[in-house]
Amino acid sequence: MEPDADARSSGGEAGEVMAERWQDVAAVIGALDSAAVAAARARQARLTKPAGSLGQLEDLAVQLAGVQGRAVPRLAERAIVVMAADHGVAAEGVSAYPPVVTAQMVANFLAGGAAINVLARQTGARLVVVDVGVASALPSGDDGEASPVAAPRAGSAGSDSTFRRVPIARGTANLARGPAMSRAQAEAAIGVGLEVVGAEAARGLDAVVLGDMGIGNTTAGAALVAALCAQPPAAVVGRGTGVDDAGWRRKVGVVERALAVNHPDLADPLGALAALGGFEHAGLVGVALGAAARRAVVVVDGLAATAAALVAARLCPAVRAYLVAGHASVEPGQRAALAALDLRPLLDLDLRLGEGTGGALALHLLDAAVRLHAEMATFDAAGVSEREPFPS
Amino acid sequence: MEPDADARSSGGEAGEVMAERWQDVAAVIGALDSAAVAAARARQARLTKPAGSLGQLEDLAVQLAGVQGRAVPRLAERAIVVMAADHGVAAEGVSAYPPVVTAQMVANFLAGGAAINVLARQTGARLVVVDVGVASALPSGDDGEASPVAAPRAGSAGSDSTFRRVPIARGTANLARGPAMSRAQAEAAIGVGLEVVGAEAARGLDAVVLGDMGIGNTTAGAALVAALCAQPPAAVVGRGTGVDDAGWRRKVGVVERALAVNHPDLADPLGALAALGGFEHAGLVGVALGAAARRAVVVVDGLAATAAALVAARLCPAVRAYLVAGHASVEPGQRAALAALDLRPLLDLDLRLGEGTGGALALHLLDAAVRLHAEMATFDAAGVSEREPFPS
Repeated sequence: MEPDADARSSGGEAGEVMAERWQDVAAVIGALDSAAVAAARARQARLTKPAGSLGQLEDLAVQLAGVQGRAVPRLAERAIVVMAADHGVAAEGVSAYPPVVTAQMVANFLAGGAAINVLARQTGARLVVVDVGVASALPSGDDGEASPVAAPRAGSAGSDSTFRRVPIARGTANLARGPAMSRAQAEAAIGVGLEVVGAEAARGLDAVVLGDMGIGNTTAGAALVAALCAQPPAAVVGRGTGVDDAGWRRKVGVVERALAVNHPDLADPLGALAALGGFEHAGLVGVALGAAARRAVVVVDGLAATAAALVAARLCPAVRAYLVAGHASVEPGQRAALAALDLRPLLDLDLRLGEGTGGALALHLLDAAVRLHAEMATFDAAGVSEREPFPS
Repeated sequence: MEPDADARSSGGEAGEVMAERWQDVAAVIGALDSAAVAAARARQARLTKPAGSLGQLEDLAVQLAGVQGRAVPRLAERAIVVMAADHGVAAEGVSAYPPVVTAQMVANFLAGGAAINVLARQTGARLVVVDVGVASALPSGDDGEASPVAAPRAGSAGSDSTFRRVPIARGTANLARGPAMSRAQAEAAIGVGLEVVGAEAARGLDAVVLGDMGIGNTTAGAALVAALCAQPPAAVVGRGTGVDDAGWRRKVGVVERALAVNHPDLADPLGALAALGGFEHAGLVGVALGAAARRAVVVVDGLAATAAALVAARLCPAVRAYLVAGHASVEPGQRAALAALDLRPLLDLDLRLGEGTGGALALHLLDAAVRLHAEMATFDAAGVSEREPFPS
């Protein structure tokens, strides 16, 4: 079954969206800068603390140095990209919420009232909300144009929000009955992500957080992880926004059928993405590739973002070095994807909201790592004695 | 052996320090406000997110509501209190660093170059450094007066530092050979903490972070935890700032001797504190009690802070409800103390620095919890559909 190519995909930006091929972007993603990595490690050893005593914060500072090619990295410019889309698989009863909630939550993002708005304001990150395939009508017209969002809520110092409307279709087809997207649609959605992150990079971009919204997307995400990690569905399917036992069993059955119907090929990550993923997953693949190509660090959030990062790393292994895992989701599929990527999450707070919330929270830790690296005194400068072990 | 009462304990503030008895402070620590807790839980259920999807951040908001007696708590005023002191047990060769580093690091705190300075600036917390028993000479005179610190380093927007010099003695006696402190000294150090937190409360205080500096204090902290949790020394002794295997075995032996010589009584936490602890531990006990009495939340950092929180909770069980565990230290004694307190740490970043660094990092998560609780839209206000499970 060929999923329908919705009329909404012909927007003013569609031409631009298709301008950049992901293969060309992936080709320029290089290894971390080894000289900057070495210089950052040497600097860490001179700071007034026992060697290694700042744990993962030391590793983060060194990774950021390698990403940016600077011994003392910066983290001034950051954006949270929330890709929103709907899923044909929602018809299978896999979510505790009706599909209309995707559009309602996009409206909530635009009004500044969702969790990610609050966290973006707290951390001073730009928020970019992208309709890459929402099914229900959105509140503010439907002109296919990118449009800045109205002034955010009170108390929003430092907030900066943008809304982009570049839908590929009004939701994917039902992955339990055939491919969710055509390969062309998946590549178009990747192109949306490339275009969005390119626009952010033009404003300056040191870090990007991958966020998502889409009723039904934990089913798609779990299916992707099951396929790419060769895991049984029951091991990677979680409760999403809160389905009960019967709902969970239904989700497992849906993923089993999806794998049987689509028989994804491990050697063809793009095909797996098209067959099992959502437009937001594909869009985030583009964001990850585009950010790494521009030497920005990519902060991964929950299941949707981590599944997207996994696809990106399968398409282009060099992207792995640019990834930071923001938090460990309650979703088992996210933990399986983190393990496959060999990523250790910075936070483990029982979050299961998505939207980029765990990634946004992790930005504070990246900030701390960068500031400690840049601002701490050295042993020499502070006149503090270095290690002087007592004779054993 | 009666530890010597050092001449430096007679300072201008000693009179004030002794003015408040910890027993009187502990007596006013009440239970959390159950009406505020219920109102905060009800508010969380109306916010535009699946119930429970913000995990520990929801629990934090509710706890803070109960602490403050407000359905919508605030976190505007916070202070990091770093108690610094030396330890007679350092003579046993239990640290990778010489004791003079305690004074050198205090000087580094005053110059703004230590990790905790950077993190205090990042989170906009006031930093209060207290000499409660440093052995080596400090750089800037020795007049026994509280003195504000010179202007902090460049880039320190929001920084606000105070230095208090109220030493009980020039370090404790060697706990491996007898009690580290007399009971009177331990109570005097608790009084220092009460006085310091009282001064902070007078400026406004919603949260206090317990921090520490003291070469040798992981040995004292491990001894305290071993005594209060009835754990074998080998299970709670760690590597501190980085001793090697021989150093670790020496530490275990020292703690074993300390327990044998001092035979602490589980029913007498003040006696255990005096026999095995340090002045910074005792000072932090006072900070914890005083903060809880003023309905401020107490954010616990590493081994020293957690051992102090454990003593405080043994002296006054009501204090437990005011505690938040900032992070899981690499030190096994800290994890044992957290378990005894039934506290789950917010962060686990392999930190082992002390100074309050893990607690300072956790303030960002408390901020996030409070802001999400206060600023998120409700389902009604945002027009977002609530749970509507599909029929099973």
